[in-house]
Amino acid sequence: MAEELILLSSEYSLFAERVKIALAEKGITNYQLRNEDFSNKSPLLLQMNPVHKQVPVLIHNGKPICESLNIVHYIDDFWNHNSPLLPSDPYQRAHARFWVDYIDKKIYPNGRMLWSSKGETMEAARKELIESLKTLYRELGEKAYFNGESFGYIDLALIPFSNVFYTFESLGNMSMEVECPKLVEWAERCSQKETVSKSMWDKHKFYEMALRFKSKWVVD
Amino acid sequence: MAEELILLSSEYSLFAERVKIALAEKGITNYQLRNEDFSNKSPLLLQMNPVHKQVPVLIHNGKPICESLNIVHYIDDFWNHNSPLLPSDPYQRAHARFWVDYIDKKIYPNGRMLWSSKGETMEAARKELIESLKTLYRELGEKAYFNGESFGYIDLALIPFSNVFYTFESLGNMSMEVECPKLVEWAERCSQKETVSKSMWDKHKFYEMALRFKSKWVVD
Repeated sequence: MAEELILLSSEYSLFAERVKIALAEKGITNYQLRNEDFSNKSPLLLQMNPVHKQVPVLIHNGKPICESLNIVHYIDDFWNHNSPLLPSDPYQRAHARFWVDYIDKKIYPNGRMLWSSKGETMEAARKELIESLKTLYRELGEKAYFNGESFGYIDLALIPFSNVFYTFESLGNMSMEVECPKLVEWAERCSQKETVSKSMWDKHKFYEMALRFKSKWVVD
Repeated sequence: MAEELILLSSEYSLFAERVKIALAEKGITNYQLRNEDFSNKSPLLLQMNPVHKQVPVLIHNGKPICESLNIVHYIDDFWNHNSPLLPSDPYQRAHARFWVDYIDKKIYPNGRMLWSSKGETMEAARKELIESLKTLYRELGEKAYFNGESFGYIDLALIPFSNVFYTFESLGNMSMEVECPKLVEWAERCSQKETVSKSMWDKHKFYEMALRFKSKWVVD
């Protein structure tokens, strides 16, 4: 049976980028991409993700899978015959899941405070963000990718946020080159892969969106 | 090779209960349980979980696995020959992971606000907690367990929090019987399993701990 695939995304969804990269890594290009308008969510989105009402949602032969990492796991489970994203060894899988969980708990929640808060709240988040990026930098060490010589699950989970490094630097008054230079090199290495570069938004567009958000919602 | 297993836990860790239940479901009883004192964390904990410095940590033949759900996944991956915790079908696996992620995002983060906050913050968390429990109640529906006829991953992830239902009711001025009666029946059904009952703390002890915490840290 031909697989029918629809990806519900939105214009700036970093989380949907993870799904696009996972599909690209598996060689799956034949899917419908539908960008949602958050001010007017489609009936399909509300039907397919009634709990969170958020993107990304992958609809596979009519069945929805929600939450970006869950979708990536699903893609790796279903199309398990080529380009594994998670390692097969149970300990290595646990190690990869640990770091991806760390990314989800630390990078975006603290990073977004740069454009959605101010004062002490923003400063505390800025400090924790820098510490978290340094922790990831130490975990990467001298390796080309987080899992070693090839692009994998941790890289895929973190790389969409590299587009926000520029926003972190500008709004957080920090330098990624100074704080964690190897992470900048890693991001450049990843973005040379076509599966990554074709799935990512423009970093300047994201910065402009963050600035618009801050000026509209965060009152001094 | 005989497996050497050490579980770093603490007296009231609901998250460690998940690991105990997973090990019990796999028939693994031959492990060392070490309860940590949070005011004086052991060098072993700091060495094995330097990133979060939290329990639970499962140390398997000298190698650490951290974060409760990650450990449960690992246990299911490593001892994959009996009592599967996650379904084998990719879509069912994704469905189970989705709900477990929902539990982690909604139940404890909102629940703990009942004993660690006050006023509007506590009231907002109380409302979200009740809505989340109702959402889980609807997902359970008429099934015996979340995945159908047998105890599985979603049940295992949620059941430790059933010990906190009493605390939710007392501090949140709510009735689980009124809000989500089937969830109370489900918790009773689960707790009749020896793998569950032998792994859980006493619900009154947890309530006393929550009260002590609130009177010490939350100033009116």
